[in-house]
Amino acid sequence: MTESNMKIEKIKEKMDKDRFIHLVGIEILEMTPGYAKTRLVIQDKHLNAVDVVQGGAIFTLADYTMALASNTETETALAIETSLSYLRPVRPGSVLYAQSKELSRSKRLISYSIMVQDEKGRDVAFFTGRCFIRE
Amino acid sequence: MTESNMKIEKIKEKMDKDRFIHLVGIEILEMTPGYAKTRLVIQDKHLNAVDVVQGGAIFTLADYTMALASNTETETALAIETSLSYLRPVRPGSVLYAQSKELSRSKRLISYSIMVQDEKGRDVAFFTGRCFIRE
Amino acid sequence: MTESNMKIEKIKEKMDKDRFIHLVGIEILEMTPGYAKTRLVIQDKHLNAVDVVQGGAIFTLADYTMALASNTETETALAIETSLSYLRPVRPGSVLYAQSKELSRSKRLISYSIMVQDEKGRDVAFFTGRCFIRE
Amino acid sequence: MTESNMKIEKIKEKMDKDRFIHLVGIEILEMTPGYAKTRLVIQDKHLNAVDVVQGGAIFTLADYTMALASNTETETALAIETSLSYLRPVRPGSVLYAQSKELSRSKRLISYSIMVQDEKGRDVAFFTGRCFIRE
Repeated sequence: MTESNMKIEKIKEKMDKDRFIHLVGIEILEMTPGYAKTRLVIQDKHLNAVDVVQGGAIFTLADYTMALASNTETETALAIETSLSYLRPVRPGSVLYAQSKELSRSKRLISYSIMVQDEKGRDVAFFTGRCFIRE
Repeated sequence: MTESNMKIEKIKEKMDKDRFIHLVGIEILEMTPGYAKTRLVIQDKHLNAVDVVQGGAIFTLADYTMALASNTETETALAIETSLSYLRPVRPGSVLYAQSKELSRSKRLISYSIMVQDEKGRDVAFFTGRCFIRE
Repeated sequence: MTESNMKIEKIKEKMDKDRFIHLVGIEILEMTPGYAKTRLVIQDKHLNAVDVVQGGAIFTLADYTMALASNTETETALAIETSLSYLRPVRPGSVLYAQSKELSRSKRLISYSIMVQDEKGRDVAFFTGRCFIRE
Repeated sequence: MTESNMKIEKIKEKMDKDRFIHLVGIEILEMTPGYAKTRLVIQDKHLNAVDVVQGGAIFTLADYTMALASNTETETALAIETSLSYLRPVRPGSVLYAQSKELSRSKRLISYSIMVQDEKGRDVAFFTGRCFIRE
């Protein structure tokens, strides 16, 4: 195992302590410094009152993807501002994927956009977020 | 029971079918047309990797509060755009309250701001959202 | 003139060098540490193609109000994230007022909401923003 | 001139009546149904108090680009929600370009992301917006 892979494993281990993520059921698919890809297999527990996926489940997927991309072995990045645009309703039986894209990075601030797609590759939600690197 | 109360009870009943809200554990405290107040008692399951409340739990509280305020017996309101500002980290043992404020309303569009406060009345997150009334 | 007033005058003097604000025609009405109130008298030059006030003019009013509230004699605050909700169209002949409200403040970050109202006190736009205090 | 080009010319003609855009000095570079590209050559009048480009000028560029992309010969699209992330300060002497990307479209709602870049192709601001098609 390379040193870089070991670092990634350490962050994964740290991030895996997130109990809300376990409750929701989000899986990490890929993770490299500054990038992450995640998956959420939609189950009955993710549905809202009109049988579409609750916005909170989609937000959690995107927000966590940003957390995975922005945290490093030595730095803790805190989300400070986020926006979420719902692009199409997500039906039962869907599988959601979220991928991060770094928009900017400075010493204390990182910003991302995250596209959430379904299993057919259709855009279902678009998230932007800004993180602050704790001093 | 007045007619108005009966209508509210019907919406409550409809909104109570939200399975994600049951998973997260959000309670409805007040609900009148165009307004809602909710509560989330923070438990271990809401914590993230660094032992503060996961942003997704806070977003879900705010987004659901908007859904309660915007849906009526006859109309379905869909969230289309949301923004969330994190104002202070929420620690284990907190109790969160969210209250909606209607900012504008037209035939097809409603917008809200939602302040999330802890049990000491401190602002912890600020949410804005826009809903579309389905035709 | 008290020391506090002298400080405010110094910031006003600094902020008054903003050439885009002169172009748009925004006036400072009130300014105390962490707070500002501004005015924009709508003229023909602020109108868009369908004779309502261009969103850019409204954004500029709100964004500048945040800048006035967040900058101090010794610190430079940079806007990093903003959101703007249009609540009602603004017609020719209107006078717009923007007032800031501080939502949170830490060593490096400040967040605000800004309500923009017309001369009849009707809400026309709602702005939220986050600033970073330069190190 | 093809029928499609004639339609574009008609929208251009309509959109060109925007007086605030003339004040700011924004040029239309490309315009096809659902897409637009614009340019802003930075002049002294666009600068703020600390000699970087005022956020309002950047917002106006992005918001107008969305208006160009979303309006058609027969439909009027109104911006309802927008967000703007500042990615890097823009210095005097820069030339800004904004390009729209359609994220979703339904009968009444369209959403866009707009990237603003400088003359070196560096991302300087990222805008998202939602428009409502007037009934």
